[in-house]
Amino acid sequence: MMTLEAFKAARSELRGVLRDTHLIHSAYFSKETGNQVWFKPENMQVTGAYKIRGAYYTISMLSEEEKERGLITASAGNHAQGVAYAAQKAGVAATVVMPTTTPLIKVENTKNYGARVVLHGGTFDEAASKAAQLAKSQGLTYIHPFNDLRIATGQGTIAYEIFSDLPEVDVILVPVGGGGLASGVATLAKLLNPGVRVIGVEPEGAASMKASLKAGRIVTLPQISTIADGVAVKTPGDKVLPYLQKNLDGIITVRDEELVNCFLDMTEKHKMIVENAGLLTAAALYHLDCKGQNVVSILSGGNMDVITMASIIQHGLINRSRVFTFSVHLPDRPGELLRVAELVAKQNGNIIKLEHNQFFNINRQQGVELRVTLEAFGVTHKRAILDALQHAGYDAAEIGTSSVYNN
Amino acid sequence: MMTLEAFKAARSELRGVLRDTHLIHSAYFSKETGNQVWFKPENMQVTGAYKIRGAYYTISMLSEEEKERGLITASAGNHAQGVAYAAQKAGVAATVVMPTTTPLIKVENTKNYGARVVLHGGTFDEAASKAAQLAKSQGLTYIHPFNDLRIATGQGTIAYEIFSDLPEVDVILVPVGGGGLASGVATLAKLLNPGVRVIGVEPEGAASMKASLKAGRIVTLPQISTIADGVAVKTPGDKVLPYLQKNLDGIITVRDEELVNCFLDMTEKHKMIVENAGLLTAAALYHLDCKGQNVVSILSGGNMDVITMASIIQHGLINRSRVFTFSVHLPDRPGELLRVAELVAKQNGNIIKLEHNQFFNINRQQGVELRVTLEAFGVTHKRAILDALQHAGYDAAEIGTSSVYNN
Repeated sequence: MMTLEAFKAARSELRGVLRDTHLIHSAYFSKETGNQVWFKPENMQVTGAYKIRGAYYTISMLSEEEKERGLITASAGNHAQGVAYAAQKAGVAATVVMPTTTPLIKVENTKNYGARVVLHGGTFDEAASKAAQLAKSQGLTYIHPFNDLRIATGQGTIAYEIFSDLPEVDVILVPVGGGGLASGVATLAKLLNPGVRVIGVEPEGAASMKASLKAGRIVTLPQISTIADGVAVKTPGDKVLPYLQKNLDGIITVRDEELVNCFLDMTEKHKMIVENAGLLTAAALYHLDCKGQNVVSILSGGNMDVITMASIIQHGLINRSRVFTFSVHLPDRPGELLRVAELVAKQNGNIIKLEHNQFFNINRQQGVELRVTLEAFGVTHKRAILDALQHAGYDAAEIGTSSVYNN
Repeated sequence: MMTLEAFKAARSELRGVLRDTHLIHSAYFSKETGNQVWFKPENMQVTGAYKIRGAYYTISMLSEEEKERGLITASAGNHAQGVAYAAQKAGVAATVVMPTTTPLIKVENTKNYGARVVLHGGTFDEAASKAAQLAKSQGLTYIHPFNDLRIATGQGTIAYEIFSDLPEVDVILVPVGGGGLASGVATLAKLLNPGVRVIGVEPEGAASMKASLKAGRIVTLPQISTIADGVAVKTPGDKVLPYLQKNLDGIITVRDEELVNCFLDMTEKHKMIVENAGLLTAAALYHLDCKGQNVVSILSGGNMDVITMASIIQHGLINRSRVFTFSVHLPDRPGELLRVAELVAKQNGNIIKLEHNQFFNINRQQGVELRVTLEAFGVTHKRAILDALQHAGYDAAEIGTSSVYNN
């Protein structure tokens, strides 16, 4: 049972373990969305996500015998690191089964927190069944990532901190994967103030909790597709479902493309790395039906590998016409490149990549294809640059950008 | 004069303007460097840097007549945004002269804070003389970025917050550009506790304050070279120099390469974007002569444009052998690519880019050059992958990585 007493106990267990993640007011998102927006930056929590809360509290609730047997869990991401860190802190041995596709950095972090890592299977489901099998054969204590009321209670402690920083909160946006975080936060928030609205956010391509709430029972999606890997769950948790049915005021779904744009805003306006699942609630700000209210968006984690990060940034820049590529055909004679460069410079376009292909055409009048990738202010600026080239007689046309990094 | 009374006045003026940037303890940097490390995250301050402090306080000290004339300043970066924001907040008109080479995003941000932006000259010095000229011809009030005791007093208020969060601080590391921030922080810190050590940090390629302190007078460097653009100053401030002579306990210099590595650590371990100048004090942690002390590293700002960011990440990954490229020559026949891919997969190397060049050689036995860019755990893992290929008879050899992004 998730009761006020359980939440209090969890908060007290977590004292001294958590980093303070105070709410951050966002002038930018407030202006963009018409509410007063505050972020709860759990990306800056120890292990880079809120998962430490549930893991640590659950371990504190285990019997000595369960602890001595050692823990096991399966996770490709934040739960793995949360369990590893919490187990180390509690002096308990932990094994984590991760899919072989897990980014190397997450494998390393989990090992660095002292856990034994077993790489197995291509998906979370395969890793999870391996973990279940190992739990049985080796007698280990299984720690589920979300379908456990102790886990959900630990995660829910976030609501205490939200009310402490902003007692006048009107709306809390919480990401939904399996439902552990969302059920904990929604339940405690309503216990603290029945008037607060708590809204879950899922990716459009993996909205298994929305489907389950609609059906009134747990639904397994046949397939899911989202870049928000932290909440890519086909089957949400049946143990937490009743708490969501009771305490959640609705679910908003967002598209992957919206997350890409939010990533850029979060780095540029708030200097924070937030992983895709963590950005769900920021993207949902644009879908709220209210204005002028105090809205808290829970940024659940920041564990994105840097190679993915660079690729997301590039997509975001292209989406907003802040980077674009045009192709133009030039006569194969000296001075032509200079003329194009001058036209671009005059329009204040910043060239970041240039490809010059001499073998494009045997007609020397249009013998060279030049591909120019530019940094621009946005769509109006892009138009101005292309117009200037076209007015000067060039066949400049926008094409897809392959890669903006040229060094 | 920078007195305790002036600092108190500045703190009181700034109440309600600043965002709380509480100290963040770093388990990772503590472990790596042998001290207890805390970050003062001014990258997360309003406008993405501490500059708002000095700008806002200085504007509050101006006469009505000075305000009515309007403000002008020159800056390629954080000071521009600080002045623009502070002026808007105070209802005063502001003009900012920025070099034409300023990243577009900084120009846009400065405009968005309501300032008039004049793009002029290729360097800060050219922009600054234009600003001086405009100040004269248009009768505007000039706000210097660092050589002004009011500016320095405003910046110094950071020290109050450090002592409030961590009264037992032993060492404060502060970046040094023109000396405004460093003189303010060092002076107030010593007023609050004469026993605290305050150490400045400069880039090796632009250590103008170190040279000035050594000479006992302001020295102008003939040329400077650093990626830490926020502190790339040839001539530091003569008005703040006496305060540094009195209160600074030394200067550490760091190389650009160290900043690149710190950028990676800061994104991965702390999920924060910190610009190069802001990372100086994090890099300096590795140069401290003490152990077991409470060290605060001031992260002065986070305004790095995202295209630079992606390039810095790539360099950091290559530095640490977490990304590398090898070239191998293959017979031009089916199945060869598969064999190489299998060898790499067996070693758990993650391929992120592949270039396959069929026209490399007319000898069909070595007719194809394959260039493979991989993600790896580090230098040991890289060695293992190359060894496996060489043992299998391939001439795999590491080459320079051109770009890791392939999409």
